[in-house]
Formats: sequence, C-alpha cells, structure tokens
Amino acid sequence: MKAEIITIGDELLIGQTIDTNSAWMGQVLSSLGFDIIRKTAVHDKREDIIGILSDSSSRSDLVLITGGLGPTSDDITKQTLCEYFNTRLIVDKLVLEMVESMMAKRGFPMNENNRKQAEVPESCKVLTNAAGTAPGMWFEKDGKVFVSLPGVPHEMRYIMTSHVIPELRTRFTSQVIIHKNIMTFGTPEAGLAEILTGFEAGLPECIRLAYLPAAGIIKLRLTATGSDRKVIEQAMDEQLKKLYETIPQYIYGEDEETLEMAVGRLLREKNLTLCTAESCTGGKIAQLITSVPGCSDYYRGSVVAYSNDIKTGILGVDPVLIEKNGAVSEEIAKAMAEGARRIMKTDFALATTGIAGPAGGSELKPVGTLWIAISGRSGCAAERHVFTSDRATNITRFAFVALNRLRLQIISE
Amino acid sequence: MKAEIITIGDELLIGQTIDTNSAWMGQVLSSLGFDIIRKTAVHDKREDIIGILSDSSSRSDLVLITGGLGPTSDDITKQTLCEYFNTRLIVDKLVLEMVESMMAKRGFPMNENNRKQAEVPESCKVLTNAAGTAPGMWFEKDGKVFVSLPGVPHEMRYIMTSHVIPELRTRFTSQVIIHKNIMTFGTPEAGLAEILTGFEAGLPECIRLAYLPAAGIIKLRLTATGSDRKVIEQAMDEQLKKLYETIPQYIYGEDEETLEMAVGRLLREKNLTLCTAESCTGGKIAQLITSVPGCSDYYRGSVVAYSNDIKTGILGVDPVLIEKNGAVSEEIAKAMAEGARRIMKTDFALATTGIAGPAGGSELKPVGTLWIAISGRSGCAAERHVFTSDRATNITRFAFVALNRLRLQIISE
Repeated sequence: MKAEIITIGDELLIGQTIDTNSAWMGQVLSSLGFDIIRKTAVHDKREDIIGILSDSSSRSDLVLITGGLGPTSDDITKQTLCEYFNTRLIVDKLVLEMVESMMAKRGFPMNENNRKQAEVPESCKVLTNAAGTAPGMWFEKDGKVFVSLPGVPHEMRYIMTSHVIPELRTRFTSQVIIHKNIMTFGTPEAGLAEILTGFEAGLPECIRLAYLPAAGIIKLRLTATGSDRKVIEQAMDEQLKKLYETIPQYIYGEDEETLEMAVGRLLREKNLTLCTAESCTGGKIAQLITSVPGCSDYYRGSVVAYSNDIKTGILGVDPVLIEKNGAVSEEIAKAMAEGARRIMKTDFALATTGIAGPAGGSELKPVGTLWIAISGRSGCAAERHVFTSDRATNITRFAFVALNRLRLQIISE
Repeated sequence: MKAEIITIGDELLIGQTIDTNSAWMGQVLSSLGFDIIRKTAVHDKREDIIGILSDSSSRSDLVLITGGLGPTSDDITKQTLCEYFNTRLIVDKLVLEMVESMMAKRGFPMNENNRKQAEVPESCKVLTNAAGTAPGMWFEKDGKVFVSLPGVPHEMRYIMTSHVIPELRTRFTSQVIIHKNIMTFGTPEAGLAEILTGFEAGLPECIRLAYLPAAGIIKLRLTATGSDRKVIEQAMDEQLKKLYETIPQYIYGEDEETLEMAVGRLLREKNLTLCTAESCTGGKIAQLITSVPGCSDYYRGSVVAYSNDIKTGILGVDPVLIEKNGAVSEEIAKAMAEGARRIMKTDFALATTGIAGPAGGSELKPVGTLWIAISGRSGCAAERHVFTSDRATNITRFAFVALNRLRLQIISE
C-alpha cells in the first residue's frame, strides 16, 4: 500500500517552520505497513493544492494532508478541498458545540472566525478535535483515502491517534509488522554500532535494526515483518533477549520511555522520594521530572540556585567553599545535593553545577563542564562530564546524563 | 523566479530523520528573491528521482537537490543524474586529490568507496566540498539550473555558502523579497484575525500577511515583494507602523524573539531582578528563562515547590492558608510569590500554582486551571486562567501566559 504526505503552508517553503509533522506521520504510516513514496510541501495556493491532490491520488492509496485549516484568510485548504471533492461547506453541529464549549471554558467570546472553524465539507467524515478548534476530515474518492489534518502538531497527533490510526488499521489489512524500541543511554552511536556488529549480522531475514539517536539517547528499533504473527513475535522475542544480554549496561527502558519516566518508575517501585538542586540546568531537570503525570508521588521539588546567593542562602552552601573551589566544582555540587536533601527531606537529592555557555568558560573549566552530585542514604558522590555543544544542547545533555546517573544510583541502592 | 527543493532519501520518508536542510535552503532562496513553490521528498529510487526532476524543471527556474550522494550502494543520485542529463561518470582529478588528502589527514587508507566519491557526471560544473568527500554538482538544461548537494547538513551549507549562493546572486537578478516577523501573545488566532480584518484589507498589493501560531504565541509574518528594494522597504515600514498602532497590547517583540527573551530584555533595560516559585509549571518557567544566554544578569533562581511541604517549609506559605483555600488558589499563588521575593531578594517574583492534568481536577478547579501571582515593588496581584489541553501543552501555555503577565507588569512599573 502506497501513501504520501502533503504539507500546506508558505512558512514551510520559506523555511520559517521546520516540518516535524511529516516525520511523525511517516513513522506512524511506516509502522502500519505503508510505503511512504513521497512528501510534498506546497503554498497556501488553490492551484498548487489542487495539482498535488490530483498527482497524489494517481500514485497513492492514502494521502495525508496537514496545514492550512486555521480560521484566517491565508488558510484556504478547506475551500480547496470542497472544490476538489465537488462539495460545499456546511456547519457541523457537534464541532460548533465543541468550539463553543472550548471558548467558554477559556473565557473568550465566540466570533465569526470561531464559527468558521465548525464549517466542514459536506461529503467528508468529520474527525473531532478535542485538542483544538480545527477538526480533521476524512474523504474518499475513486477508492483512495484522503485525510486533512490541522498543522498544529499536538492537534494533528490527537486526531491521528484517536481517529485516523484505528481507522487505517481496520481499513487497510496488510502484512504483520511489529516494532519494538529499546531505549539506551551512555554510549555514542558509532560505539554502540561497533558493539552490536555481531548482533546485527546474526539478525534473521525478517528483522531489521535501526538506530535513532537524539541528544545522547539512542533508540534501537527492531522491526519484524511477516505473514504469521506468532512466527515473527517469537523471532522478535529471541532477538530482544540477545540484545539485553549484549548491552545490559546501556538499556534503560523500552518503547517510548524517557529517562525521567524510568527514574520515576524506579522511585515508585522502591517507594523513595527525590528532590533536585539545579544551577547550570536552570530547572530543566525539574521540568523533565514533572512532565511525567503522577510525579507528585515521588518528587518534592527543586531549588534552582542560579545565583550563588541562592546556593548559600537557601541550600546552605558555605560561601567560603564557593570562594575556595568556585561554584562549578565537586565540592559545591555535593554541598548543593546535601543541602537540598536536608531542606526538602527526601531519600535522594540530585544536584548540578556547570557551564552551559556560550560565555563563562575558562581553560580549566571549559564551556560544557558539568558536575553532578547525588546525595542518598548511603552517602554523597559526584562526577564530572564535559560536553562540547551549544547552550541549549549542553543543557539537555547535562539533564540527561544527570538523570541517568541518578537512575543507576537508585538501582544500586 | 521560481525555485523548488528536492530531498532524496528513504530516512526522510519514514520519518527517521527530520529534514532541517530544506528549511535552511528555503530561507536562503527566499532571501535571494526566489519564490519557493514546492518541496518534495522522494525515495532513493531511479524512477522517482527522474520523475520529480522532470516535473520540477517544467515548473521552476532553479531546482536544488540534496541527498543520495554517499559512497554506499543505496545512494544512486549521481548515476540517476547522469541518466537524466544524458552524460557519464568521469573521475575529477581535483576532487580525487581533495578526497586523498582528507583521508590522509584523518589517517584512513583510501578504498574503492572513497575513489568513487571523485567520480562526477561529465557535463556538470563541480562544486568542491572542503567539509566532506562528496562534491556538489551544477547542471543546466533548457535554461533551467539544477544543483545537487550532499545531504549532510554542514557539507550542504558549506557548498551553498561558498559556491551556490554567490553564483545564484550573479546569475538570477530577481525580485527583492523582505520578511518581517511581529511576535504577539494574548489573543487566539481567530480573535487576532478579527481585529486585523481592516488592516489586512488595507495592505498594498506587494505585501502579504501570514499567521503562524504556536502554543499561544502568534507570529505575524509580513512579506513584501517587488523589484525596487527602497520602494518595498518603505511600504513595509508603513504597514509595520500601522500594525503597531492597531495591536500595541499584543505585540511583545520582533523577528524570532521569545517571551523569555522579551522579559529578559526588559529586566536588563530597567536593571531589575527576578525570581520564580513554581508549582504546576514544575521548573518550566525557570528553564525558559535560563535558556537565554546571560540571564544571570537579572535572574536569581526558582523554588519549584511541587509538594505543599516545600511551599510551607521553604517559601514560608502558611499551612492554614493551604488548608483553607487549597494549594490551587489566589491566596497560595500570592503567598508563593511573596515568599519567593522575600527569600530570594529580587525586584519581582513570579509564582504559579495550578492543575496541569491529566488527574487532579474537580468541578470548581478543572484540569487546566492556573493561578499566576506577581509580587513587585508596587504590591502583589494574581490572575486566573483556564486551559483545555493535555499535560505537556497546558504546562507550556501556563509558562507563556505567566511570562507575558510578568512582561506587562515590568512595563507598567
């Protein structure tokens, strides 16, 4: 089965927006067994949209379209779809109610543009959008399926997940494809690939391995394809077992588990509590930990001690110690962790101090230097890392390496 | 002049790689005055590549192509270009020397794959690549220009910058295009569009307006096109002035300025300091503020008071007040802000308490409820907002609306 993706919007063509939607959709379609043969970005322009719709339908069984569904005059996807599918806009009552209730909840008055959001092409099946005001639309023409979705990423993903994926699953029966993601941290891609050379060479015909690296986390995706689910499930289980035996020290979770989710899972399992004290990471670690629903079961809070006054005044770090060692040092990392654990009364405290850049580095302590300290019931230990990226990437890497160190510490206690 | 971009590679279609190249190229082409009418991603597949080359040349004056130039067997762009331009591969001596010297520098022996990198289509102009081993290639056919570039981002950018951009400048004298982004916050897209109906209707022919919304921030992009730079610059200035007069309350910055950058800019201008106390935002606001280089000039730190113990123990919130009003209330938001300002000794303190979801909501305080409080030299005030998204989006919206409230407060003092 062939599929293609059309993204609509001037901002994509002139490069003001990096298109992340079509990568996400590509992954989803691929996991459903579709061959994605083309992705095209076009202007918010009637002839261009009509042209690519017509071209796509001659090549593909499924066409996913995003963008151009906003209420403003530069968004013309809906009218153009009406023209292409030879239908007209009508008000959908359910969508209108949803828009009205959303605006009421947020305390905004309804206006003409909001009402326009409830207008949909008469011939489409409406895919309701609980994450925003623009609904998705499912069309069929000459045996081909077209789905139009809003370009706002979380709205697109909501409609894909709750409507489109289930419908595609039942509609397009195909080969069985199983994906399994193994999440690793602690070794660069080239190093991991070297360790896994033998594992890869030994993979059966029906299983492929892909490396998906992002900020130090490498997702290993195993994809098994075949006609018999039992057979490929068994082959997958065997390879997973081998993989766990080969790199136990790097695997921290499966599927879409993040490091902060893994840390939370371990704390909950062991009934332990955590607090943090952050200097260079500036709240990033707290933000990651609290992105996990239910984190209040194990997480108490953080002191973001960006200035030295906060380190001494709230965390109780001795000013003489800062004077002597500098704020970016093993001693201060440890004192921050111990101070945080004392005032927030938790089983563990994780502290960071370092230099994210671009300024503030020196020969001895270059930009990218990080000290992590963990204070727990068995004492306090620190370690140093050095990264070499820009500020934003350094901060992310700092947070990940700190969370991973904490994860290992929780396991070992 | 019309241009389009073709990206070649299976990894783009199945979503393993997010395509950042074409956004960069789109910005460059746009600034050179090209109208980028289409971007297409295709498989590493002969027929698909030939097909899109032929389609593109019928529409555009310039076609930029990236990807598929590696030495491995799945990369077939070079052979396919030979077929399309009716030429053959020959060894380019200069490229061979460059590859040999690069391999020697890295201490690697030359192999067959490296030598293949020096093979180029006979009819093209070679664009040398000092950043890697695959050269760029410039073709002309029927008055149309085609440029093939490697897909590795820094190699593509090197060849673009040192060869392609200068050549395009001299080759295509073209229309001038100017973009200007006005950053707004505080009204949803539909509401803003309503306010700007008259402004839009009054835009001169040469200027277009686009709305680019993201998590409550709406970027208004004005694009002016014409043959005379002075004329369109003047037209742009006039419209910008009108826009500022129409929606002064919603404009917080220009170009790519974020809310946290705007807050930082204002604090620095007024020589004021800030701290934060976050409950439901869990460190997100601190993380945003500290993502800005140099923020230590005005930002002291944050207490992420996720549990009530931290609110009372560190921020000094009266436990009786929490008992009486609940942690998500005007009283607690204010007490958090005042406590933070007292212990961190700053001019301003920004506090948040709310319910990000998915659990924890009630009829009176649904998921999405947020209280913001700001304590400053002129007193302490709070306001309530309600959002209706998922946890991650709610947290982002909470942080943005709080930063914007703070921004307005800083301006008013």
